[in-house]
Amino acid sequence: MANSYIDLNCDLGESFGAYHLGADEQILPYISSANIACGFHAGDPSVMRKTVKLAMQHKVAIGAHPGLPDLVGFGRRMMVISPEEAFDLIVYQVGALWAFVQAEAGKLHHVKPHGALYNMAAVNGRLAEAIAEAIFKVNPQLILYGLAGSELIKAGNKLGLQTAQEVFADRTYQPDGTLTPRNLPHALLSDPALAARQVVDMVKQGKVKALTGVEISIQADTVCIHGDGSQAVTFVHTIREFLSRESIIIRAV
Amino acid sequence: MANSYIDLNCDLGESFGAYHLGADEQILPYISSANIACGFHAGDPSVMRKTVKLAMQHKVAIGAHPGLPDLVGFGRRMMVISPEEAFDLIVYQVGALWAFVQAEAGKLHHVKPHGALYNMAAVNGRLAEAIAEAIFKVNPQLILYGLAGSELIKAGNKLGLQTAQEVFADRTYQPDGTLTPRNLPHALLSDPALAARQVVDMVKQGKVKALTGVEISIQADTVCIHGDGSQAVTFVHTIREFLSRESIIIRAV
Amino acid sequence: MANSYIDLNCDLGESFGAYHLGADEQILPYISSANIACGFHAGDPSVMRKTVKLAMQHKVAIGAHPGLPDLVGFGRRMMVISPEEAFDLIVYQVGALWAFVQAEAGKLHHVKPHGALYNMAAVNGRLAEAIAEAIFKVNPQLILYGLAGSELIKAGNKLGLQTAQEVFADRTYQPDGTLTPRNLPHALLSDPALAARQVVDMVKQGKVKALTGVEISIQADTVCIHGDGSQAVTFVHTIREFLSRESIIIRAV
Amino acid sequence: MANSYIDLNCDLGESFGAYHLGADEQILPYISSANIACGFHAGDPSVMRKTVKLAMQHKVAIGAHPGLPDLVGFGRRMMVISPEEAFDLIVYQVGALWAFVQAEAGKLHHVKPHGALYNMAAVNGRLAEAIAEAIFKVNPQLILYGLAGSELIKAGNKLGLQTAQEVFADRTYQPDGTLTPRNLPHALLSDPALAARQVVDMVKQGKVKALTGVEISIQADTVCIHGDGSQAVTFVHTIREFLSRESIIIRAV
Repeated sequence: MANSYIDLNCDLGESFGAYHLGADEQILPYISSANIACGFHAGDPSVMRKTVKLAMQHKVAIGAHPGLPDLVGFGRRMMVISPEEAFDLIVYQVGALWAFVQAEAGKLHHVKPHGALYNMAAVNGRLAEAIAEAIFKVNPQLILYGLAGSELIKAGNKLGLQTAQEVFADRTYQPDGTLTPRNLPHALLSDPALAARQVVDMVKQGKVKALTGVEISIQADTVCIHGDGSQAVTFVHTIREFLSRESIIIRAV
Repeated sequence: MANSYIDLNCDLGESFGAYHLGADEQILPYISSANIACGFHAGDPSVMRKTVKLAMQHKVAIGAHPGLPDLVGFGRRMMVISPEEAFDLIVYQVGALWAFVQAEAGKLHHVKPHGALYNMAAVNGRLAEAIAEAIFKVNPQLILYGLAGSELIKAGNKLGLQTAQEVFADRTYQPDGTLTPRNLPHALLSDPALAARQVVDMVKQGKVKALTGVEISIQADTVCIHGDGSQAVTFVHTIREFLSRESIIIRAV
Repeated sequence: MANSYIDLNCDLGESFGAYHLGADEQILPYISSANIACGFHAGDPSVMRKTVKLAMQHKVAIGAHPGLPDLVGFGRRMMVISPEEAFDLIVYQVGALWAFVQAEAGKLHHVKPHGALYNMAAVNGRLAEAIAEAIFKVNPQLILYGLAGSELIKAGNKLGLQTAQEVFADRTYQPDGTLTPRNLPHALLSDPALAARQVVDMVKQGKVKALTGVEISIQADTVCIHGDGSQAVTFVHTIREFLSRESIIIRAV
Repeated sequence: MANSYIDLNCDLGESFGAYHLGADEQILPYISSANIACGFHAGDPSVMRKTVKLAMQHKVAIGAHPGLPDLVGFGRRMMVISPEEAFDLIVYQVGALWAFVQAEAGKLHHVKPHGALYNMAAVNGRLAEAIAEAIFKVNPQLILYGLAGSELIKAGNKLGLQTAQEVFADRTYQPDGTLTPRNLPHALLSDPALAARQVVDMVKQGKVKALTGVEISIQADTVCIHGDGSQAVTFVHTIREFLSRESIIIRAV
């Protein structure tokens, strides 16, 4: 399925206490939705409040970005948790972020799991269902962001949640539609133009060329933009330019 | 001011992971409102979910019980935090508990700060205002529980929050209306009948006899019941019996 | 290989802050070595100090019992950590416990990884090597306790550490020498006499009868005794009685 | 008392997980001793290992830098802890760092409490004694770094620990020898030459000019150098230059 509009999302609010991470203020003008860390893998109550305010100033849609309880590992280390534990983690963190949005008279728009939780939910149907159910029970109007074609998207759809299929600008794809693991060669696209080209093809034609050269179908509702690294602004700039040339409108899901 | 009804509240949901604390199931049939720990000084997402369910089964009004970020100290150690930090702590924890209540299709009724945060907010006007504002901004319908006559109650009233003045059954009072510090002699009433008598006097006559013998005015909207210790059930039982004899109805604020 | 003496070890010091866990004082008179939690999965600095003192009063050999950084999961949830992360976790926690032993003018005797870290190190050679190396570098005199026949024991031996092969009184074995997983039927021996019989056979004959009935070889240097549950004291009592009848001496490795 | 040599110390190893803080590699060539965070207010096991290695490569004396258990507050928020809790915190953290030094075949040289713990120990005699005792019991050869003239220095001396009186290059002093609180005007010296001049006067003449203009006596065994901020390298550079002109040798205590 092809679109004439697309959402650009970015993970924000990843600072913690005295620790600063990410270029939130630099990236906010370029994106349409923000996933804000909720204190388990990154973020703290103060950072959450400030990031919610900042996102609202930029009129960017606000999402919760819940992660595993692993601050030192930044939520990137796989942990064996039960579906019930996943449910509880999601309810807790979504509620915490909701309250900051509420305190600013804003509206919580979506939920996107972070890191290892995102990856586990992409392939583990029972975890995916527990996460979708948690979101649904807190607020069935929330949109679930997940890896395009993943178990998480399926679980959300099955439950009646609106879902947004996420694609990546700077990652390459395997013939089965999964991302090339980071530890393999050619996992990353370092050329902004190639990345922007890939985004346009995914959005316009609903297709992406896998590493093997074969074209596969992919639904692109939202593109993940990285918010740190010296290249971040260049990347998002190029992507916006390419989208603009094709008259694709950038807006939240 | 004297009442013909009173609320009995108790701190619940203080278990954590493999650690069990409190006799929640034993005390729930006797109380009318529950303050549920929110994961900072005690409680975890799984305990929160279970405790919310349990409280709803007993038709007990549910409150958030936010504390300082000090799990090892159980939120009882005074920490110097800024009003802004207090605001953020409250928003975060109230939101987290709200989400579990929401997921169970229940209703969050009140907020009562825990431990050192409660004590600091009783005497520090700026902290008290920040806490009241946090609650108000998340949901102005929430009722603020605080020490009777404290800065926290004043801050809540000033902002237009409904407040509930809390008194203690088993603690003695000073002539200025404050609690006798625990490290002083006669701080605690160990006789359930004396404690129950004190409660009835506070509720019916709006008075309590201070340690010096002088009678002082006190408003009693809610009585704090302790949920652990071998005496807990005996105490609450006796208090209920005394209240019943005086036709004082027990119900949430 | 059969012995005429055996070590009985138990996990202790698992309380945390206001949370009490385990029957340390009841079990200490019956065991010869204690594995003390180091603050990551359980325990805190105060609990560590008190438990070290208590163990020294009972003249029980003291070991560090390092775990994964997962307090809410009690270190029982598998996490994907790198060998380097395992090395660092072990060094940190062994050092922390060592300091309490040092402050009491005692001697640190051994290290036994906890929970998911123990299980992962039993089968993952690279993790096992990292853990063994961490212990060796902190103090090559420390004895490494691990599952009998595991990768962890092999890694310790390869490095020149003294190792102690651990067996279980109340768990059943598979024909390949591994423990029957807890979620399978007959994983546990609930009869103290059967458990004590199994211990005697392992110690005296170096053999254990697997669930299938086949006898397999096993080296038993130390037996894991559980320190909580109402049955704990009954179990250790029965085991001691059976060992005594066979003139097997109980002493630390 | 005036010296012809001085120690320059700096707080290092304050990164945590994915969070980078401080310019450790830039500052190490200029200092003679390093205070390494121990995981409570900053630092993690991996950061500790790397920082110990780095300090050893630069032949800088290694100290433990234990703090309050307040990662989100960076150990800067005053907490009311008991002397016993202070003792336990110190033992735990000193042991953890000792183990990394031991694993690298190095030698732990000193202990300097961090942040609010340092400030509390400067004025609270009972806390100071507990901290000194903790260090003494772990290893009486360790040198205690504390604020010049403080209760912590007195407690260390009383116990027989070697102590190092710490002075500040870029902070101004009150007539009673305490630092001008940061929230008051003129608390900081922003001119590197003035700061360096102050250091030379303290080292050479054992005197510092208080904000009021009056000269007071001060013993300077070690100077605290800040390791972050764009000015950090400029400051330490200027201080070294001024010390060199006066033939004052820079070396660890």
